[in-house]
Amino acid sequence: MSTCFDRAAIDQIEKRNRANLINSLAGYKSANLLGTVNAQGQSNLALMTSVFHIGANPPLVGVLFRPHSVPRHSLENIIEQGEYTLNMVTRDIYQQAHQSSARYPREQSEFTAIGLDEEYSDTCKAPYVAQSPVKTGLKLVETQTLAVNDTVLVVGEIVELHIEDALIGDDGQLDLNAANAVAISGLDEYHSARSLARLGYAKP
Amino acid sequence: MSTCFDRAAIDQIEKRNRANLINSLAGYKSANLLGTVNAQGQSNLALMTSVFHIGANPPLVGVLFRPHSVPRHSLENIIEQGEYTLNMVTRDIYQQAHQSSARYPREQSEFTAIGLDEEYSDTCKAPYVAQSPVKTGLKLVETQTLAVNDTVLVVGEIVELHIEDALIGDDGQLDLNAANAVAISGLDEYHSARSLARLGYAKP
Repeated sequence: MSTCFDRAAIDQIEKRNRANLINSLAGYKSANLLGTVNAQGQSNLALMTSVFHIGANPPLVGVLFRPHSVPRHSLENIIEQGEYTLNMVTRDIYQQAHQSSARYPREQSEFTAIGLDEEYSDTCKAPYVAQSPVKTGLKLVETQTLAVNDTVLVVGEIVELHIEDALIGDDGQLDLNAANAVAISGLDEYHSARSLARLGYAKP
Repeated sequence: MSTCFDRAAIDQIEKRNRANLINSLAGYKSANLLGTVNAQGQSNLALMTSVFHIGANPPLVGVLFRPHSVPRHSLENIIEQGEYTLNMVTRDIYQQAHQSSARYPREQSEFTAIGLDEEYSDTCKAPYVAQSPVKTGLKLVETQTLAVNDTVLVVGEIVELHIEDALIGDDGQLDLNAANAVAISGLDEYHSARSLARLGYAKP
């Protein structure tokens, strides 16, 4: 049995239930911790669930910042400093990663608050998460603001990768299962995954 | 043991391996079949792996179209017709969904080519995938083209939902595990998922 919700029916769903439903519609999302630092050297960490591939050559990654969300501190830091990191969230750290979405005061680093360690490289001034097995350093390339609701799309070019050797396959593919990467659905549900198949390049 | 790839090292990776690596960096992606129709009534179906939540009120969904990719037929249809559908990909149909990414000639509907059934409603002129348990009907609201590589972000407002009753929880959350929804990594790897926990709203 299926239910059809027209727009009037969707708008009548109780507010929190509607948020859960609409958030979970799009399916499994990747979980990444975004690391930034401000001019005063204050680090910041934010859980981002809208991170996606934009191009391989040059290597580009997009991150979506929804309006009025906590990661706005992060967005300010990215625009101010021009650099940031993305760190894959695994089963070992997903509870801490989720906790980073709490509204900590601006002067408190989420690293300290949730107990993850900052790690720095010479190439990128933003902090990496030491506990993450797949770390991406980026420089800001472009931002676009959506007219419809002030969501901001941030596009970054990859300047550096730190990846555990065992996770990279012979053909370059990362083994997300072996990394124990988690997926998110809705606002707060975390999942582990198991590979079904690799299907190769499809031909008619 | 970890390896650090600076930008020169990334650029030196063999082209296909680099595509696999950069594509799989961002983690698990949701799998959706995008249904469209053109002015001549020709239906089109495309596998989209960059679909994400943009807002719950009004309910908005974003889809990213990469340059020079097959789904450009779909993008043309969306802009021409102003309506499209997103259909959750499950274990039952992921092999067919992947096959839809083959380069079929424009005059051939992927529905016929891969063996999925079109389903229509009175509200949305674009075709739904009958076999999908979670179907979203959308109208085009906004498009943004990225200067950096001509990727197009399409934002749509939800006009209709068709969801199997058993998948909607008491609080509105969709049970993606029960739906047998799949996640994708890289260009061609499909995964099933199992819930670890729901963590609730995080507080400091």
